[in-house]
Amino acid sequence: MTDQVIVTKFEPEHRQGLVVIITGDGKGKTTSAMGMALRGCGHGLKTSIVQFMKGDLYSGEWDGVKLLAPLVTLQATGKGFCGIQGNPYSHAEHRKNAQDALQLVKNILKEDSCDTLILDEINNALKLKLVDKDQVQQILDLRPPHMHLVMTGRNAHPDFIEQADTVSEVREIKHAYRKDIEPQPGIDF
Amino acid sequence: MTDQVIVTKFEPEHRQGLVVIITGDGKGKTTSAMGMALRGCGHGLKTSIVQFMKGDLYSGEWDGVKLLAPLVTLQATGKGFCGIQGNPYSHAEHRKNAQDALQLVKNILKEDSCDTLILDEINNALKLKLVDKDQVQQILDLRPPHMHLVMTGRNAHPDFIEQADTVSEVREIKHAYRKDIEPQPGIDF
Repeated sequence: MTDQVIVTKFEPEHRQGLVVIITGDGKGKTTSAMGMALRGCGHGLKTSIVQFMKGDLYSGEWDGVKLLAPLVTLQATGKGFCGIQGNPYSHAEHRKNAQDALQLVKNILKEDSCDTLILDEINNALKLKLVDKDQVQQILDLRPPHMHLVMTGRNAHPDFIEQADTVSEVREIKHAYRKDIEPQPGIDF
Repeated sequence: MTDQVIVTKFEPEHRQGLVVIITGDGKGKTTSAMGMALRGCGHGLKTSIVQFMKGDLYSGEWDGVKLLAPLVTLQATGKGFCGIQGNPYSHAEHRKNAQDALQLVKNILKEDSCDTLILDEINNALKLKLVDKDQVQQILDLRPPHMHLVMTGRNAHPDFIEQADTVSEVREIKHAYRKDIEPQPGIDF
């Protein structure tokens, strides 16, 4: 049915890396970042994903991205959501993990080894003092101009919103868990 | 660094399909739906994507999802954004395409051939009268209880927000195009 449609492939006159922040309390921040990784594949772009908080609870994207290898790589360096009920790790342990994650990020920046760098839940990690504001600023400063940088998580810092090119706030209008529906695979994790 | 982390794989006592709506004017609605398709792969879930508006302008997800085949299939049945400057197709042509897309959707529902059904930009298609409200209601009524239904696009109808389990509104805080930055591959398309 699309045989009469002429498909155009847009190419910007000037390619440049964008700083994108996806914040807010609604569902669809990490998910959106995963969609960017998938979309990048269609353009032959390499994406590196570093997950700052996740690591203790299986999430479908871990195996999903394996289907996108070698274009997409994911490292889940976290120990779950610091301070959330049931999470057994201390703040010091979470911070150590997040600091290790920063080192990974610095290596990626230094080696200029991807086109899109996704720092999943780094906004939370900053809010929870697992990383410092100066450290996040350093990432922005070290970013090669052609590299997209995507930062997700609630409570994005206003200074980074100021510096970003595109910022979306995902607002929760409603969420299934409020109706006591359990998290469902494929949608919630 | 994650060797001390115990990874738990959550399994809900009761699996059920969710109706998810991603609406709002910000960047990250289709992208989020693509992330759900990717995430579903990690759980072995099959996703069918029908894009109601897109079809005239190449978007990276078209080739990206091919890497997820056969778990994920995508059909871009649209002719671009109806009424947008530069789009040469009449409302009647856009409507015919959207109606054909509905037929695809009905077949998917009838054959119960996926775990997650993504109707990309169907909210816009309804707003632009390319599909009718009764027709969208019929999709919700025909949905098998185990099937996730994800509806994206601006201006989601309040009646469907009412019926949905999870609804996120993606608000634009800022967007690169307002700084006259051209759309960039991997991020914007």
